[in-house]
Amino acid sequence: MLGRSLLAVILMLWFARSALAGDALPSWNDTASRRAIVVFVEKVTATGTADFVPVPERIAVFDNDGTLWAEKPVPFQVLFAFDRVKSLAPQHPEWKTTQPFGALLSGDLKGVAETGEKGILEIIAATHTGMTTDEFTATVTDWIAKARHPQTKRPYTSMVYQPMLELLAYLRANGFKTWIVSGGGVEFMRSWTESVYGIPPEQVIGSSGKLKLETRDGNPVLVKLPEVDLIDDKEGKPVGIQSRIGRRPIAAFGNSDGDMQMLEWTMAGDGPRFALFVHHDDAEREYAYDRTDKLQQFDKGWDEAVAKGWTVVSMRYDWKTIFGPSADKQSGR
Amino acid sequence: MLGRSLLAVILMLWFARSALAGDALPSWNDTASRRAIVVFVEKVTATGTADFVPVPERIAVFDNDGTLWAEKPVPFQVLFAFDRVKSLAPQHPEWKTTQPFGALLSGDLKGVAETGEKGILEIIAATHTGMTTDEFTATVTDWIAKARHPQTKRPYTSMVYQPMLELLAYLRANGFKTWIVSGGGVEFMRSWTESVYGIPPEQVIGSSGKLKLETRDGNPVLVKLPEVDLIDDKEGKPVGIQSRIGRRPIAAFGNSDGDMQMLEWTMAGDGPRFALFVHHDDAEREYAYDRTDKLQQFDKGWDEAVAKGWTVVSMRYDWKTIFGPSADKQSGR
Repeated sequence: MLGRSLLAVILMLWFARSALAGDALPSWNDTASRRAIVVFVEKVTATGTADFVPVPERIAVFDNDGTLWAEKPVPFQVLFAFDRVKSLAPQHPEWKTTQPFGALLSGDLKGVAETGEKGILEIIAATHTGMTTDEFTATVTDWIAKARHPQTKRPYTSMVYQPMLELLAYLRANGFKTWIVSGGGVEFMRSWTESVYGIPPEQVIGSSGKLKLETRDGNPVLVKLPEVDLIDDKEGKPVGIQSRIGRRPIAAFGNSDGDMQMLEWTMAGDGPRFALFVHHDDAEREYAYDRTDKLQQFDKGWDEAVAKGWTVVSMRYDWKTIFGPSADKQSGR
Repeated sequence: MLGRSLLAVILMLWFARSALAGDALPSWNDTASRRAIVVFVEKVTATGTADFVPVPERIAVFDNDGTLWAEKPVPFQVLFAFDRVKSLAPQHPEWKTTQPFGALLSGDLKGVAETGEKGILEIIAATHTGMTTDEFTATVTDWIAKARHPQTKRPYTSMVYQPMLELLAYLRANGFKTWIVSGGGVEFMRSWTESVYGIPPEQVIGSSGKLKLETRDGNPVLVKLPEVDLIDDKEGKPVGIQSRIGRRPIAAFGNSDGDMQMLEWTMAGDGPRFALFVHHDDAEREYAYDRTDKLQQFDKGWDEAVAKGWTVVSMRYDWKTIFGPSADKQSGR
């Protein structure tokens, strides 16, 4: 009798566990990608095994643009910068005849593109520096609440991937600390990552400029300077991880070649590890782009993932929904 | 009857609560300093009041040298660097005739001091850069386990302040996230802060050099470069806090003028806030130094604390023990 009831308990626990994973990732089809995630998480959380990883070492890092939310037609922070130029234009009459601002204000995006990296950096400097960190955060908070995506006409924060929100929650429920490691601006992201992803500001690493402590009206303020502190992309991602987190993640999630070094850095450690690329192959519900994309190329990373057996998620086949069922229909893409 | 039993319950809860704080800070005498800490913590954790602070915003920042552990005769990381020069000397025969190395190797600390900041920076560069982050961590881990303080002859990690360990634990038990924000090297501290203070690497902010991603033997490594990334002292502390944590702490703990800007930055926010300086006034059990100390001056910060009513801890009168009763006796200071 004891043997039978023990078996019953074990079976019950086993089913309960499977059900837990099943409940946690409802927007994922039951394909190899989903199974690989669950196998990894069950492995590192299985106490008393060689693969067990203590909770403090369960660090998972996520790229943001294209991995947690959409990034087309251009990363949303660029659209924020463009909107800011328009808002600030009345205070800068000289912009009408200065490039890239004149082109941007007259809606000539090709003209902006022709000014190249220098032009984009000038727009970033004009819209992201000179103010205090508190002022910048207030501006982003206001913009993200009101702005709408040019194609879907929906708030940007509704263009986060439902399956990835579930993955973040599933990892956290299993003792992981979830971090963003993104090429995007750290203060741009921190204004909304806690409410949208459940990721607090201190777990957001991003590109950043230098800061300077000043006294204004008798109070200390931090002013955003037009000098680069960290470019958190490609080789910069492992640097950002080491300088901010100080230990190697055991799981990394990205979607383009800019994330390759982060995935390599994660996989080069000892013990069980997990690397995943999101592949944008769903032109109907989102966007389709990879090897030949000029802004967010997914080419070398894809080859490496295939060669090394890393997980490559097909948004089309692995995900039941992208933005949630009603938003998928509404997006009309 | 109902009234009486309700009163009994209230009294019981009140005593239980006081007992809790009492149990949490046993090495603190029942003076104004200890009471100020408890009043603050009880205030921000009292649900339903205007002063209540939600758990994610309960950020407390601590200086390390002189605040959590001793810093005399010089910050312990300097002694680590000196020991490293001695260990590395056989590989550098040229050091015998090059300053500051020659002076250091012959025990002529005055000669080292005469080379000034330039000399110290050369020693730091020679002992803290060129290797990978993993190699450096292994070196520190080995050193901290074996090295002994020149005066007390005890391991450096036993020269942490028992009352501050209790304070860290008390804050964490009340939902605070505890951070180190120190002028010391971030990777030097991260090697041991988790085991000694219960503070994980990702909650340690410190001075740091730039890192470079390289491939060695087919594996990605991060190499420590001799270029400054962040000097996490004075004006650099609010910069380190904003760039790494991204929100303003509500409590800050330091011991010298190098911590002043961190305390000012913390106190300049809205809502209830707490700032505390540890004053080294106990030559018998530890060290006594303040306004005229050349390395760790406590002068302007002290004046500001008095003027603004911040808490100044007297190590002599507020603390029952410094390093724990047996170590206090053994230290013979």
